[in-house]
Amino acid sequence: MGIAAKTQGPAVAIVPLGGLGEIGKNMMVMETEKDLIVIDAGLAFPGDDMPGVDVVIPDYTYLLERRHKLRGIFLTHGHEDHIGGMPYLLKEVQAPVYATRLTLGLVERKLEEEKLSLPARSRAIRPGERVRAGSFTVEPFLVNHSIPDSVGFAIRTPVGLFVHTGDFKFDQTPIDGRVADYQRLAAYGAEGVHVLLMDSTNSERPGVTGSERQVGEALANVFRQAQGRILIASFASHLHRLQQVFTLAAEFGRRLAVIGRSMESVVEVALKLGYLHDPGVMVPADKIQELPPERVVVLMTGSQGEPLSALARAASGELRKLELLPGDTVVIAASPIPGNEKLVQRTIDNLFRRGCHVIYGPHAGVHVSGHGSREELRLMLNLTRPRFFIPVHGEYRHLLHNAELARSVGIEDDRILIGENGTLFEVTSDAARIRGKVQAGAVMVDGLGVGDVGNVVLRDRRQLAQDGVLIVAMVLSREQRRVISGPELITRGFVYMRESEDLLAEARERAIQAIREIDEQDITEWSNIKAAVRDALGRFLFERTGRRPVILPIVLEV
Amino acid sequence: MGIAAKTQGPAVAIVPLGGLGEIGKNMMVMETEKDLIVIDAGLAFPGDDMPGVDVVIPDYTYLLERRHKLRGIFLTHGHEDHIGGMPYLLKEVQAPVYATRLTLGLVERKLEEEKLSLPARSRAIRPGERVRAGSFTVEPFLVNHSIPDSVGFAIRTPVGLFVHTGDFKFDQTPIDGRVADYQRLAAYGAEGVHVLLMDSTNSERPGVTGSERQVGEALANVFRQAQGRILIASFASHLHRLQQVFTLAAEFGRRLAVIGRSMESVVEVALKLGYLHDPGVMVPADKIQELPPERVVVLMTGSQGEPLSALARAASGELRKLELLPGDTVVIAASPIPGNEKLVQRTIDNLFRRGCHVIYGPHAGVHVSGHGSREELRLMLNLTRPRFFIPVHGEYRHLLHNAELARSVGIEDDRILIGENGTLFEVTSDAARIRGKVQAGAVMVDGLGVGDVGNVVLRDRRQLAQDGVLIVAMVLSREQRRVISGPELITRGFVYMRESEDLLAEARERAIQAIREIDEQDITEWSNIKAAVRDALGRFLFERTGRRPVILPIVLEV
Repeated sequence: MGIAAKTQGPAVAIVPLGGLGEIGKNMMVMETEKDLIVIDAGLAFPGDDMPGVDVVIPDYTYLLERRHKLRGIFLTHGHEDHIGGMPYLLKEVQAPVYATRLTLGLVERKLEEEKLSLPARSRAIRPGERVRAGSFTVEPFLVNHSIPDSVGFAIRTPVGLFVHTGDFKFDQTPIDGRVADYQRLAAYGAEGVHVLLMDSTNSERPGVTGSERQVGEALANVFRQAQGRILIASFASHLHRLQQVFTLAAEFGRRLAVIGRSMESVVEVALKLGYLHDPGVMVPADKIQELPPERVVVLMTGSQGEPLSALARAASGELRKLELLPGDTVVIAASPIPGNEKLVQRTIDNLFRRGCHVIYGPHAGVHVSGHGSREELRLMLNLTRPRFFIPVHGEYRHLLHNAELARSVGIEDDRILIGENGTLFEVTSDAARIRGKVQAGAVMVDGLGVGDVGNVVLRDRRQLAQDGVLIVAMVLSREQRRVISGPELITRGFVYMRESEDLLAEARERAIQAIREIDEQDITEWSNIKAAVRDALGRFLFERTGRRPVILPIVLEV
Repeated sequence: MGIAAKTQGPAVAIVPLGGLGEIGKNMMVMETEKDLIVIDAGLAFPGDDMPGVDVVIPDYTYLLERRHKLRGIFLTHGHEDHIGGMPYLLKEVQAPVYATRLTLGLVERKLEEEKLSLPARSRAIRPGERVRAGSFTVEPFLVNHSIPDSVGFAIRTPVGLFVHTGDFKFDQTPIDGRVADYQRLAAYGAEGVHVLLMDSTNSERPGVTGSERQVGEALANVFRQAQGRILIASFASHLHRLQQVFTLAAEFGRRLAVIGRSMESVVEVALKLGYLHDPGVMVPADKIQELPPERVVVLMTGSQGEPLSALARAASGELRKLELLPGDTVVIAASPIPGNEKLVQRTIDNLFRRGCHVIYGPHAGVHVSGHGSREELRLMLNLTRPRFFIPVHGEYRHLLHNAELARSVGIEDDRILIGENGTLFEVTSDAARIRGKVQAGAVMVDGLGVGDVGNVVLRDRRQLAQDGVLIVAMVLSREQRRVISGPELITRGFVYMRESEDLLAEARERAIQAIREIDEQDITEWSNIKAAVRDALGRFLFERTGRRPVILPIVLEV
């Protein structure tokens, strides 16, 4: 499949390779007969059903088959789910990367860690600037989001103007004073938007998402009331929030330290590029123990309760450079991402056990989302007045709710297209429709391997995790037509071997008997031995323990 | 430790063995020098860090060491986290079980499944009735909760009156008309409550928990609007909610079927005992396909998105007896328990993909909690006016918030005692204090094994789940002082074996070389071979794949 030559007049294909029907690994292809651009190249974190997997990236096959047409990679902002796939992608394709200055700085840092560099002709772009990429002309426009320098793209194509919002909210009082560009969005609306692609993340949420400034006010209250140290956990990339803490530190006469690898790294980049301003409060983390508690504030990682993060380790008493004390105030300035709830709760409980004062949860006012709620999504629809609408960035229900919003502002049902990863949308100057499905999905990255862990390996891992493994090893003499050593039984993750000696001894007897029952003729066929042992032990162990370990018979021959 | 003979005057020990510092496996011991009673014997479901574990029960050691003193087991209500441990406990101890009729019926059913029966002299008790158990006199009082026949206990002890609330809320308009017994609670308060032990589950939640009747109104709206079939997922034991659906079915002329093992089982018990009334609407599940969609309502399991539940299987198209159709209305009448959010969301997305109308979430009104919120907890404190207060049933932060509520109604700080599982509280007629810590914790049940899976086994399982296992088997000739067959390499959950032949071939070479480097003298020591192989392959595989599979060298001798 792909974009057809047969179509009457020009046509543009829109192919989401990630981020539709899921939260994470956002990536989208836009394509004409001759040219192709990519918007974002993110990663996702693995679910519980992917043990051992480090990260997940989109299946790029569709793009790789068309790499000769690739004219540019455009990035909306610097979050992992939008740029985290770049090191993997750039090992496969080369094309100029276009992003705002902060986003590009974060990508460069990420590439350096992998000993890669930006492709030739990559450069920082500014809102309002137009970039030609084959038959596409891409113009970034400013939006508000939980990382500075976030943009959407207005894309002029042979069939009309497309608007891709990226992740966005409308913050009327942003920390850096840079409000989303209403004028330009309205101008697109006046010009005529052919297709709008809009963030669906918060389409279930009524009303309007709060301003980041409200978080500043809640944090100021914390600074007013806290007697001892203040520790604030936040996403590392939330530079506006970090800036508010820097500013409050100066205002309240506290020194500020940063703890946690990703936080240290982002702060360094942001200070260098001027996206974060230190009013002279920063001190190295190892200095805070020397300062009086009421003179200290710490910014740290761990707002998701990740077991290896600074906050979780501090909470369980394992972080040497920061020993928590009764009287410390800990602020968790984030909501748990679905799936992380229990980790966050465990961290909060541990903090309370250490006597900390903990500020967290939806009523504390120390977090607002970076995504627009229902009224903001409606506002974007009304500003841009699109002819066709494709909801993007969200689980399936979010896409549906976003579609419902479009209907509520008067977009007819047949102009709303709902697809998922791999859906091929075809847009001509007077129509938009779903043409089919292309290869798309999740590629799992485990250690250095990209894509070498698949469903079979995961199924094995899940089974190993359930009841462990039992290995039955023996030596077969081909000459003597019998087993001359073993079977030896070894287990991991099944039962305590020491306390289950009787069980294993009996299992061994069963294995011996199963082998004995095989005819002399058949015994040199390993598969007969293996099947007999697996059957006999599987039955026996299930009867005795109610468990089904993975049974691996191994026959060595001499 | 235990209750001391030295203490001046009589003393009562309160020892929580489960449910303090966690949600689940509630169990508490109350003890004098000569007698002991148990309140509740629940189970908990395993966390993500306990792969393969089926359920978790409290470590009963403290109780078993004192079983000769056991005078009775008192159960507050029929939820798994209060009665689920009974089959395990009754294999270890025998004592009369006292519970209200429904609770006892559910326990009996549970015991029958394990071929057990209730101990001698067990019997159903009614609110207001007094039961002597050694030096304790226990009087159940009615509370509201998300299962009928829930009670708390007023316990007269040698040192004064204790009140244990069990799980409770105050529902002013309960479905069965049985409001919590304010009169009796107030009378206890007038008499003088020495110690109050109160449910902390919702102590973070402001205001008052809604009445179950509100859910009925929301469900009535669903019945009014639904064009096609109505499917309602709920906890099986929530008989008031089930009753409302039965009643609505009759009112709106729909036939009702029940799908899901636990739902079928509870409905059967409840109909038999009269806790559920069928106004003639029930039909067998296999009959619903024959009825017109607007004449059908189905009650089913799966409100937590459990992958094997009826709803999850229907949502993914795997439930043969119920094929979902566009136009079906699905109601998820429950909140996700922390940790289940993603499973529930996946189910909702799948339902939307099938074109169902899905009603879910906090704003839909189709669920209220069974636990009292902050104002109800304050009301309980003011009704009973306890001298000492011990918050129970909740994670650590819930206990702390509950303590804060007690302070807010005027209970002094030194009369509030916060402990966790294993804390030994000692109460005399004029004091209550924490005396120490006894053995308590989690016993994991896996298949037929109770307690034979511990940290070592779990650690192995987690490691196996991360990167799988590599087995390196070989035959050593003691005579020839060399390896005469193998090493053979077998993996599971590490890499695809077929696609990694080169890697494994090279690994085999490394293993051979590592063995070769061992002196002839040392080679008959298996441990030398094993260590050499493990080291060499561990390093090699990490370099090449970034993974650390469990490496199991096996040496067989001939």
